[in-house]
Amino acid sequence: MLNESDLEFTKKHLSFWDKLNEDEKKLIINNTNKIKYNKGEILHNADNECLGLVLIKTGGLRVYILSEDGREVTLYRLGNGDSCVLSASCILNNITFDVVIDAEVDTEVLLLNISTFSILNKNNIYVENFSYKNTVDRFSDVMWAIEQILFMSFDKRLATFLIDEMSKTKSTEINLTHEQIAKYLGSAREVVSRMLKSFESKGILKLSRGSIQVLDKEKLRELLI
Amino acid sequence: MLNESDLEFTKKHLSFWDKLNEDEKKLIINNTNKIKYNKGEILHNADNECLGLVLIKTGGLRVYILSEDGREVTLYRLGNGDSCVLSASCILNNITFDVVIDAEVDTEVLLLNISTFSILNKNNIYVENFSYKNTVDRFSDVMWAIEQILFMSFDKRLATFLIDEMSKTKSTEINLTHEQIAKYLGSAREVVSRMLKSFESKGILKLSRGSIQVLDKEKLRELLI
Repeated sequence: MLNESDLEFTKKHLSFWDKLNEDEKKLIINNTNKIKYNKGEILHNADNECLGLVLIKTGGLRVYILSEDGREVTLYRLGNGDSCVLSASCILNNITFDVVIDAEVDTEVLLLNISTFSILNKNNIYVENFSYKNTVDRFSDVMWAIEQILFMSFDKRLATFLIDEMSKTKSTEINLTHEQIAKYLGSAREVVSRMLKSFESKGILKLSRGSIQVLDKEKLRELLI
Repeated sequence: MLNESDLEFTKKHLSFWDKLNEDEKKLIINNTNKIKYNKGEILHNADNECLGLVLIKTGGLRVYILSEDGREVTLYRLGNGDSCVLSASCILNNITFDVVIDAEVDTEVLLLNISTFSILNKNNIYVENFSYKNTVDRFSDVMWAIEQILFMSFDKRLATFLIDEMSKTKSTEINLTHEQIAKYLGSAREVVSRMLKSFESKGILKLSRGSIQVLDKEKLRELLI
């Protein structure tokens, strides 16, 4: 059951809200719950039952694919106000691939349960349209990630990632382990460590346990040219 | 302008047809043209103006991405009765990536021009829904291709490709060059040639100029285990 402030948040972020009739609005209000996930917790994977429509209130989620031998490739990351439809992919017949979704940080989501979302998606063309549109948005994110992985040399990819992180956190200190960065970039820890050390030797950054201090933003940007 | 038989074909394959009013149906009939593309011809790329909604009557199209240094990675292939929305991606704001589309063989398409498709897509929620749904279908195709490229060892990928080709053409002879196969698999010609020769040495197939004769389907299938 949604409280007043969560209802406002939902109205703001689910673009189909105005296209719902009163009964449909009540269905959402009565079947949405707030759930907290701890950092690292897995919300959804191939074995899990289907979760429902996820709307992120605070925190962030990471969506990735997993090879049989345990390699992870991050497809995209979601933050406050983003909604996630792939956590309800079981009701979308044309989504035939599996992803894993975990919490990057402690995260609070509003979850519309799968049975209610399924009813709305089937009966209201605007909800169905929202589901597809949201998935096409993510398709664009995935294509960007894939082009990076397939086409961009690794030093540029790592530099791009560090610049993005700095602008996201508004800080020159990046508090991620080499292992985490490797996961985001679909690479191996050893490769990330080697490249970071090479950046350090050029005076671009300083490494310490669990954190990276960027010293020379300009030199980092020059790698992208 | 659509003739009677092409109109029947269009009605059958554009799932939104029954949701159009009479004016909208007339718009489609008057603004769809039959176009022939020769094998190898490029229909659409990042520089091209936006083409419109493509419905394949006969032949086949290949959709791929291209790196700055000219590497191609095939995302998916389309055949008779398939429609292609990415050739109209300029009117879909949330598709932010570029693809190249070329004719794999001599191909005949029905093309609904971009201005008409744009009007219908904006004014009719069922057309918009078709566009998104079609794109989500392709998203699933792309994820399959990407998982193959990132996770599957190359011998398995090549074996999978040869088995798919045999079942598609219902023949044990595959009339493709090593260069073409490399493009389909996002690999290099040298890598394909080396692996095919290794298959030949195991008695799985016989190579000759421009064609591959599969001799032992069972051994090929065993590679997938």
